[in-house]
Amino acid sequence: MITLTTDFGLRGPYVGEMKAAMLRINPEAIIVDVSHSITRHSVLEGSFVMEQVVKYSPAGTVHVGVIDPGVGTERRAVIIEGEQWLVVPDNGLATLPLEHINTRRVWTIDFERIKRFTGWGISSTFHGRDVFGPAGALIEKGVSPEEFADEVPPDSLTRLDVEPGEEGGVWLLKVVYVDDFGNVILNLKNHGRPQEVKLPDFSLEIPYLVAYGQVKPGELLALPGSHDYLEIAVNQGSAAQKLGLKVGDTVRVKLIGGD
Amino acid sequence: MITLTTDFGLRGPYVGEMKAAMLRINPEAIIVDVSHSITRHSVLEGSFVMEQVVKYSPAGTVHVGVIDPGVGTERRAVIIEGEQWLVVPDNGLATLPLEHINTRRVWTIDFERIKRFTGWGISSTFHGRDVFGPAGALIEKGVSPEEFADEVPPDSLTRLDVEPGEEGGVWLLKVVYVDDFGNVILNLKNHGRPQEVKLPDFSLEIPYLVAYGQVKPGELLALPGSHDYLEIAVNQGSAAQKLGLKVGDTVRVKLIGGD
Amino acid sequence: MITLTTDFGLRGPYVGEMKAAMLRINPEAIIVDVSHSITRHSVLEGSFVMEQVVKYSPAGTVHVGVIDPGVGTERRAVIIEGEQWLVVPDNGLATLPLEHINTRRVWTIDFERIKRFTGWGISSTFHGRDVFGPAGALIEKGVSPEEFADEVPPDSLTRLDVEPGEEGGVWLLKVVYVDDFGNVILNLKNHGRPQEVKLPDFSLEIPYLVAYGQVKPGELLALPGSHDYLEIAVNQGSAAQKLGLKVGDTVRVKLIGGD
Repeated sequence: MITLTTDFGLRGPYVGEMKAAMLRINPEAIIVDVSHSITRHSVLEGSFVMEQVVKYSPAGTVHVGVIDPGVGTERRAVIIEGEQWLVVPDNGLATLPLEHINTRRVWTIDFERIKRFTGWGISSTFHGRDVFGPAGALIEKGVSPEEFADEVPPDSLTRLDVEPGEEGGVWLLKVVYVDDFGNVILNLKNHGRPQEVKLPDFSLEIPYLVAYGQVKPGELLALPGSHDYLEIAVNQGSAAQKLGLKVGDTVRVKLIGGD
Repeated sequence: MITLTTDFGLRGPYVGEMKAAMLRINPEAIIVDVSHSITRHSVLEGSFVMEQVVKYSPAGTVHVGVIDPGVGTERRAVIIEGEQWLVVPDNGLATLPLEHINTRRVWTIDFERIKRFTGWGISSTFHGRDVFGPAGALIEKGVSPEEFADEVPPDSLTRLDVEPGEEGGVWLLKVVYVDDFGNVILNLKNHGRPQEVKLPDFSLEIPYLVAYGQVKPGELLALPGSHDYLEIAVNQGSAAQKLGLKVGDTVRVKLIGGD
Repeated sequence: MITLTTDFGLRGPYVGEMKAAMLRINPEAIIVDVSHSITRHSVLEGSFVMEQVVKYSPAGTVHVGVIDPGVGTERRAVIIEGEQWLVVPDNGLATLPLEHINTRRVWTIDFERIKRFTGWGISSTFHGRDVFGPAGALIEKGVSPEEFADEVPPDSLTRLDVEPGEEGGVWLLKVVYVDDFGNVILNLKNHGRPQEVKLPDFSLEIPYLVAYGQVKPGELLALPGSHDYLEIAVNQGSAAQKLGLKVGDTVRVKLIGGD
């Protein structure tokens, strides 16, 4: 099983070309589309989405992610081998899924050697079709990365700064994701079960609950969400719109009461 | 074969997580995406979409539908067994597809017992991944619902009111669907072949034909559509926009002439 | 393997119905979604997208394309047999993919005979489900087109005019595609490697490079793109928006220097 997460959009030929190229190399592959509508160039959003899928995927799954603003420049194309596989540009996209796969080895793809497997050249603008997709298809087929990549030290991987900050009992959190419903997901995992959540930037104090339906339509609440991250939501509405927040924004948060 | 119909949207991790969870339980499943872009919380729209797919699916197909504004509340998660299977929240979503599967038995999923199959907890906000997806994957694998659900009377199912109304020879119809082209689909099946259709709310009288191209671009027509429901369309345009209609709206319609 | 390219949109039942119908006829088929978001009725855009996927697909792949403004009228439904297969309305959609498959024979589908395989009628508005999808599923299963189609001369196929024009050393080019990033793709293949590209309609002279990142964010460049067509782009921005261009528009282009 190979999963695909990209910012290619759904109108164009890109996703189709990438999948066709993969099936040409590995006709038996089961390809699962995760999302092709990651916000363009948003490596943080892509990293969050890939993390969630990794958490529920079977061992051995190959996750191909292409959010790649540096395509055609010197950034490396890497393969991360663990209980599952990640095939991604080395721009931080692996940061969050990495935490769940027990990394064993890291490889950097050699463009000259992978061309021998595909039989076509490598464009400057579409490494999903020419590099990442084929690499994922080869790995799922059982071809060793040694055949088309070189081992590199795991600590050479580029990582995003996703650690929550703290200042005098107030968390400085980053929006890691805004879903289609407008729910705002913040980078605070395992945050216990507070009673209330204060958002000093908005002079708001909102209840911490477990289900959207526990407040009236249109009202704000905080909740653990389904991803273990702190989530701010509006029942039957959009918290992102109400608070004017988007991925990458910083929010101050104070947890009140609870354990 | 398992089909998926949800309002999760295509940007996020939700669809990917759900499919990963299903393939973890049942790696052989063929999963067919119907739509993940049902209008948020529109149970009627979801019911219409699922009905159309049921009509063309092979016997034994498992249809998982998750349009679920009541997630985390007391609403039941049900399995409907017939010539095909439906796995849905008990909020009326099954109403239209139910008519085509010759229901034999209905079950309500037991969250404690299904957890033993998945190995993870049940969140308050994402039963697609934690309940409905796994249940569908188990059924397609041949696991009996008895293992994780309890039989309930078929007439205990929640149903939407989808019967067309009538008043003095004028139909009171509901918009059950507006497609991406803006074609408006009304809940009147088997409506014969009238010559014209009167829309008194708009002081309009439009021809009843069989193909969009039979009127000039920009002009209104009525037609049987491809779903046996009465459809109002604009050739190369949007009837929904022209008439200001959306799913759930009521329209008065008078059929003139024909059989 | 069967690929699907349509303008059906992703909200509705159409894609799900079509895939259900295909799997009912051919349960073993691997169906690859290319795009269901081709600009409505844009045969040229669909032709470009299908061409790109054909270039990377394995021999024997069946490509079903349904961008079909003439559905329900007299236009033919055709099957094109070559190293790969195309199953499309005869409205020019095959024009660009045709160049890559070494056509051997062309067939026109007989609606009466294909009904015997599906077991349902043919609607006036949805030939994707009733004609093209089933035909593709039958071909992939190994059923000969003879069973449900009649051979016709290859030169009877409708073709779009996609030849680039020239006038006094200036190319008159057509926009064949605008991708989700706003990159503008023009119908000039194998255009060598100029140093600069003049766009007299906009009084612009822009550099010809190989990667988006070679100009500053917001700046225009021309490049070979990943499809061998001349591409106009803005680094981290939208060239289509900046220049006000859409599919089908004509642009004057002068290539300067290079080979």
